[in-house]
Amino acid sequence: MSDVARLAGVSIKTVSRVVNDEPAVHPETADRVIAAIEQLGFRRNLGARNLRRGSSSGTLGLIVEDVGNPFYSELNRAVERVATSYGRQVLTGSSDENRDRERELALEFCARRVDGMLIVPAGMQHGYLVPEMRAGTPVVFLDRPAGDIVADTVLVDNIGGTVEAVTHLAAHGHRRVAFLADSPDIFTAAERLRGFREGCARAGIPYDERLVIMRTPTEENVGEAVRHLLAGPAAATAVVAGNNRVTVHLLRALAHAGTRPALVGFDDFELADLLDPPVTVIAHNVSALGEAAAELLFARLHGDQSTPRKVVLPVRLVPRGSGEVPPA
Amino acid sequence: MSDVARLAGVSIKTVSRVVNDEPAVHPETADRVIAAIEQLGFRRNLGARNLRRGSSSGTLGLIVEDVGNPFYSELNRAVERVATSYGRQVLTGSSDENRDRERELALEFCARRVDGMLIVPAGMQHGYLVPEMRAGTPVVFLDRPAGDIVADTVLVDNIGGTVEAVTHLAAHGHRRVAFLADSPDIFTAAERLRGFREGCARAGIPYDERLVIMRTPTEENVGEAVRHLLAGPAAATAVVAGNNRVTVHLLRALAHAGTRPALVGFDDFELADLLDPPVTVIAHNVSALGEAAAELLFARLHGDQSTPRKVVLPVRLVPRGSGEVPPA
Repeated sequence: MSDVARLAGVSIKTVSRVVNDEPAVHPETADRVIAAIEQLGFRRNLGARNLRRGSSSGTLGLIVEDVGNPFYSELNRAVERVATSYGRQVLTGSSDENRDRERELALEFCARRVDGMLIVPAGMQHGYLVPEMRAGTPVVFLDRPAGDIVADTVLVDNIGGTVEAVTHLAAHGHRRVAFLADSPDIFTAAERLRGFREGCARAGIPYDERLVIMRTPTEENVGEAVRHLLAGPAAATAVVAGNNRVTVHLLRALAHAGTRPALVGFDDFELADLLDPPVTVIAHNVSALGEAAAELLFARLHGDQSTPRKVVLPVRLVPRGSGEVPPA
Repeated sequence: MSDVARLAGVSIKTVSRVVNDEPAVHPETADRVIAAIEQLGFRRNLGARNLRRGSSSGTLGLIVEDVGNPFYSELNRAVERVATSYGRQVLTGSSDENRDRERELALEFCARRVDGMLIVPAGMQHGYLVPEMRAGTPVVFLDRPAGDIVADTVLVDNIGGTVEAVTHLAAHGHRRVAFLADSPDIFTAAERLRGFREGCARAGIPYDERLVIMRTPTEENVGEAVRHLLAGPAAATAVVAGNNRVTVHLLRALAHAGTRPALVGFDDFELADLLDPPVTVIAHNVSALGEAAAELLFARLHGDQSTPRKVVLPVRLVPRGSGEVPPA
């Protein structure tokens, strides 16, 4: 125990207090002691109890749409990195864009006494979380805001990014630009639509509703949309794809189509640079999104009582080829 | 409570026993009661305690190399699907191919009382798990076997798949085939090397150690390996890539190289069909791997006491173009 005290720079009495879950130890001091215990490999001797403070389970809950989607798995990894640095582990769950499933997962996480939750919300009603939040379980929303409660939120600049995509295509001569995205029920899709409209206005090109298709991006839906958008005399010469799933299905559909419109996709993705043509994207730092949300959660766990924060992370256009071609 | 009893087809007394965590209820009966409680939405009233039997936390632990790697995130999703069907949630962690980190994660999961664990092992020594397994926490190893204990294991046919890759390239006229893979410390890489040697022997082509490079597949390492393998009069005309990380880095390196060897990659990956040329792979069903391992774990949780099982899932070659070109 004296080794632990020395490493943590505290008295043996303080180590004893932390080990016995006694109050009156500053959370940061307790963290330091626990880190020292772990570093010295005392954990197994002391037992699981000492990983915990109060009723903490030493876990965070992370709810995303689909843990198997590369966007969310990168987010998951970033959250895990921060959680590990604070000695926590991560319970994960996929909502499948279903608000009931989101709620069920969140309440199950609470029943399993997570220390806090990070949620990419599927629904727009989060009153069900208020009792849990009042009871001391902090919740941070990421990628999309909470529906009807005030809560910490970390987003990316959806509007600014889509404005940039449209103005970029317009600058290369396109006037018939399509917007192909997920269902407008989804916050990010709705925001990007706003950005698309604003981009058209700023670039002085027509906003044509017939060139806007917003549906769940299955392979079938995207294939159908592409056939529609590229047909006829008023066909689109360029497409803004609303997220990485849309882009991937769009690329597959275009491989079988005769024409090849200019393309800018929202979200970067692996191998985008190796396709022919390489895909121009609105990139954002997915790891930074996960890390910022997790750090905000830990600030709350460590006593930060300030008003809920909204953080918006920047995006940037990465020109690679597919967005820099003139109209056919 | 009578609704629960009716739905579960048991007596009110039995429901009461389950709710109060009393013994003498058959596990399957208890499962049925809990399912009925959940279906009827009684969970919140009954409190977290009733999700649990004995010391169960209602969670499984899943340890992979990197939750952010698409291969593992697909595995994660499959495990989650099975876990959800049994009312369990999933704690995940990344070992980063570090055996100490794997051990630390596994012991932390046990300290958090997971009902069972699924491990893609980084190390080859698992004696540390024996006390946990004896205490009733089942462990299933997936993608790689346990090192020095007998345990349930689900693998894919690494040797058969690599034999097929080599014979396929030989059938297209290649005699100088390189093998570029992860470190031979890793079970799957070592097995695939065995398959590569066997494939060379079967196809009657020389096995040349100079064309075998096995290192952690970073972008830098793979780039260096490619420059080495494709240089000089004895350069390789074809490459077998040992996993999806090797393949992706190899494709990037080849995009900047002058020559383009034939290629077969182990593991399928998103967009492989849209690259130029499309990439021929040894595909296996990653979801089936996760599901088989999770189902085996639940069989153990439900009382299956038979001897540890080893399941080997089949693989198949998917010809797309990169593996069907003759030597330059």
